Amino acid sequence: MKNHKNISKYEKAVVLFSGGQDSTTCLAYALHKFNSVEAIGFNYGQRHNIELIQAQKIADKLNVQFTVINLAVNEEWESSTLLNDSVIIADTTIEHPNSFVPGRNLIFLNRAAIYAYKNNISNLVIGACQTDFSGYPDCRNEFIGSAERVLNLAFSFPFVICAPLMWLSKADTIKMMVDLNHLELLKETHTCYYGKRPACGKCPSCLLRLKGFRDAGKKDPLKYVSSFNT
Amino acid sequence: MKNHKNISKYEKAVVLFSGGQDSTTCLAYALHKFNSVEAIGFNYGQRHNIELIQAQKIADKLNVQFTVINLAVNEEWESSTLLNDSVIIADTTIEHPNSFVPGRNLIFLNRAAIYAYKNNISNLVIGACQTDFSGYPDCRNEFIGSAERVLNLAFSFPFVICAPLMWLSKADTIKMMVDLNHLELLKETHTCYYGKRPACGKCPSCLLRLKGFRDAGKKDPLKYVSSFNT
Repeated sequence: MKNHKNISKYEKAVVLFSGGQDSTTCLAYALHKFNSVEAIGFNYGQRHNIELIQAQKIADKLNVQFTVINLAVNEEWESSTLLNDSVIIADTTIEHPNSFVPGRNLIFLNRAAIYAYKNNISNLVIGACQTDFSGYPDCRNEFIGSAERVLNLAFSFPFVICAPLMWLSKADTIKMMVDLNHLELLKETHTCYYGKRPACGKCPSCLLRLKGFRDAGKKDPLKYVSSFNT
Repeated sequence: MKNHKNISKYEKAVVLFSGGQDSTTCLAYALHKFNSVEAIGFNYGQRHNIELIQAQKIADKLNVQFTVINLAVNEEWESSTLLNDSVIIADTTIEHPNSFVPGRNLIFLNRAAIYAYKNNISNLVIGACQTDFSGYPDCRNEFIGSAERVLNLAFSFPFVICAPLMWLSKADTIKMMVDLNHLELLKETHTCYYGKRPACGKCPSCLLRLKGFRDAGKKDPLKYVSSFNT
């Protein structure tokens, strides 16, 4: 870990880090771009805590400090499939899929901002992406711009939200990891909606991931239950 | 309590309700303006839980449903005097007083929005006020406008933030309660920073409150430890 002393707030970044493919790409990107990088994750009763375990592994490999913040929002978010084992996850191509967790990204950004404000860090890095057509309103570029504005106003502090994946396809994010010499790190990233390792290879998230690797012309280093990754 | 069925989301409101003078005025205002009103409060380890006790009393008097939402942000907010008994509260006339709780109003609005979204309620009512010169950046009109925008974008839901006290002096909010025939309700509202009942009459909050009543030409129905209110 780098020494954070004598580094200005404008050179420091907090990465919103779930241990998934996108936020791991953001973390690799941030380490390339900023002089001092920390990662934070959120524990909010999500279906698969395997995410946070993998996140810690990846942070350790990259020698990055990883802090998990507990959110007490379980009840309010319980109708989402991301938190409720009894609900089947629908196809993610419809608008407002039932894995939509209302208000989640703004809560995440706000809590990240509280952490960053306390540690004098200006940059918040998030893996929001408009081009994956997930239908989540809080992944869109206009939302991110508005969130940056409201955080600046709320804290009177020069927050900059950096969303390096905003206009990238899944294939492009994989190519970014190739550029950053971190493709192998994606072996540790968690994607499967069902929290399985090896990954199921059948859920919408696994299918989207596998399509991205196919489109990028790369082999996914992640293990799958059978021979999906061929 | 009114029957909430068959009332459109545009006629329903959630009031961010602390049991203080301002949010009680907002609650009385909302009951006058909207067809269906609920109140929510936040438990975040504040110094004086007396607020929430008084809030419940006031909600009961007005026959309004009151829900308390627990926030797990104590550690991140611990340097504020509002949460820390060991710190003396400074004069509130300086910019960024040490009772500033970074990011608080955006967290409150976001959590209120999650609650409102789940219950199909469009209006969020908050007692933010730019004219009291508190120096809190997240009480300003520009912040509220930006928060309304970001919540609309985050949820794809037509939230309207209503801040009826934004441009009122303390005396004007007292006159509003006179207009609404609820001045006596202010007897139950909690203001004192030190959580005392009867109120201390000496802290910046008590002094601001007493000045408001003097300016409005009204007697404060609240009990004070001695004869401050004469």
